[in-house]
Amino acid sequence: MARYAGVSSAVVSYVVNGGPRPVSEETSARVRSAIDLLGYRPNVSARALRIGSTSTLGLVLGGLENPYFTELALSIQAAANEAGYAVVMGNVDRNRSAASSRHILDDLIGRQVDGFLVASENATADTLEHLQRNNARSVVFDAPSPIPGHSTVGPDAAQGARSAVEHLVSVHGHRDVGLVIGDDGRAGADARERGWQDALRSARLLDGPLARADFTRAGGYEGARRLLEAANPPSAVFASSELQGIGVLYALHEAGVRVPEDVAVVTFDGTAECEYSWPSLTVARQPVDSMAAAAVRQLLTPGASHHETFPMELVVRRSCGCVPQPTTG
Amino acid sequence: MARYAGVSSAVVSYVVNGGPRPVSEETSARVRSAIDLLGYRPNVSARALRIGSTSTLGLVLGGLENPYFTELALSIQAAANEAGYAVVMGNVDRNRSAASSRHILDDLIGRQVDGFLVASENATADTLEHLQRNNARSVVFDAPSPIPGHSTVGPDAAQGARSAVEHLVSVHGHRDVGLVIGDDGRAGADARERGWQDALRSARLLDGPLARADFTRAGGYEGARRLLEAANPPSAVFASSELQGIGVLYALHEAGVRVPEDVAVVTFDGTAECEYSWPSLTVARQPVDSMAAAAVRQLLTPGASHHETFPMELVVRRSCGCVPQPTTG
Repeated sequence: MARYAGVSSAVVSYVVNGGPRPVSEETSARVRSAIDLLGYRPNVSARALRIGSTSTLGLVLGGLENPYFTELALSIQAAANEAGYAVVMGNVDRNRSAASSRHILDDLIGRQVDGFLVASENATADTLEHLQRNNARSVVFDAPSPIPGHSTVGPDAAQGARSAVEHLVSVHGHRDVGLVIGDDGRAGADARERGWQDALRSARLLDGPLARADFTRAGGYEGARRLLEAANPPSAVFASSELQGIGVLYALHEAGVRVPEDVAVVTFDGTAECEYSWPSLTVARQPVDSMAAAAVRQLLTPGASHHETFPMELVVRRSCGCVPQPTTG
Repeated sequence: MARYAGVSSAVVSYVVNGGPRPVSEETSARVRSAIDLLGYRPNVSARALRIGSTSTLGLVLGGLENPYFTELALSIQAAANEAGYAVVMGNVDRNRSAASSRHILDDLIGRQVDGFLVASENATADTLEHLQRNNARSVVFDAPSPIPGHSTVGPDAAQGARSAVEHLVSVHGHRDVGLVIGDDGRAGADARERGWQDALRSARLLDGPLARADFTRAGGYEGARRLLEAANPPSAVFASSELQGIGVLYALHEAGVRVPEDVAVVTFDGTAECEYSWPSLTVARQPVDSMAAAAVRQLLTPGASHHETFPMELVVRRSCGCVPQPTTG
């Protein structure tokens, strides 16, 4: 570039940055036309050393085989790009060893990312301490509850679960609403279970049957099979994650149970997959875009750490019984 | 680190790199214990300037709302990590303006990534030329056919489509196999259409009915609706992408058409979504892991540019009629 314009690289820098030294009109015009012709991209590594920022954020999450996490990751990336930051993803699967997760974190720390966005699933005390010890800023997203001393963003999961179950009880008159939920002791699962309980109890109903299984399609299938095999299966099921909801539908179809006529289903999360499942799933929808924007904003505008929650919205489709079903055959 | 061990940073470097200058046993031990205590991470920006590599690859793709692309992106990331590289994603949506796509490319070029993995959907002549002009190495993945002068990796899409349609014809005796396919002139779509035609023609069948619609769930829904509204709807449908297959199922259910009893369906791609659709979809499965590994290998081991294809495998499930259906009601 400098060679093309016949000037030193310092002069190119003066023109681009408007100083610190003055450049003659004529030289400045020559440099600008060279920039137009060749494009100008500052060396990012050199710039990073100079200004102490790589304009990069580290995204630590796992479970991208779950479309909800993919949607969240894309939304975070869009929010970061909007603010002028690129995203490097540290794909930390929950099944990885602690050493391998630590290696991924250390690689991102070594890359001098400007901050970390950590999925609550990966935000172990160990990980958060390690980041703090390395003076790395971080925000935990998809967090169901506050973590003292850390900035966190999450859905109001209890409210979301309650609204889905209340819909089954008050609109469709169900009295036995089974719960299919994860068994891994995540705080997020606790909030969903509480929401389900709250909805039943405030209608003076006993807690319905409950099946714990993995937060996966296979887990939902397994949970629904257990509920179905009982002598007194529930007339409705709340599957506390969308993937479980998809697995619940499969189990019901396979058993020849009609949805929603014999068993109604509602679920939680709400990506496109459950819009085109059969029947389409009524769902408490995660506030993905708001959470992503808030997480990036909290990371880039330092302030006192706090917990930000966003309400979930109930999207009504076929699986609860609100839309008349076609006649088959 | 150096301050903690009471030595200069040059001495730390000598200890870590085993030279070039000798360090006394005692000092060396002090540095090592500081490293154990504090961890040691070389400054990546400084290292990048020194060795001319950022150990980072740029991944240029769009359409991550399609689980097939998510699976491919994760698989590429795993292969890159395995080789010691991090991945920065340039999420170039097909609907973006040329200027905005160019901006994303230029950001990655400015970050001195060591090479680019470009999805065929985003590998326009303009993009490939721009990368070459900037001396950026690149490999195109998910490429249905060779691009002269470029390294490309892709599925044998014609063979995949043919095997799916042949299954409907030879195993299940269908004679009218409709095609739902994209209308956007992608070369990948051409290969799938050719595979469908080949299967029909080699069974001496006329080309069946064809509906062009978007490569999305909504597109599949729309395409199937068009086929169903005819006075002579086909008895089987090949949906040339999994998302379209999901939309086809929805349209058939909504119209009260039984799958596979009234209309059989087979599709193409094969992520977990079509394993748990109802009925589960028989699918020509993309060789995702092999393609991802090959793309990273081609990028990191320079050689003559060439085109590498991988065969697709037919995974048989419920939607073709191979598994007996449960009785509903």
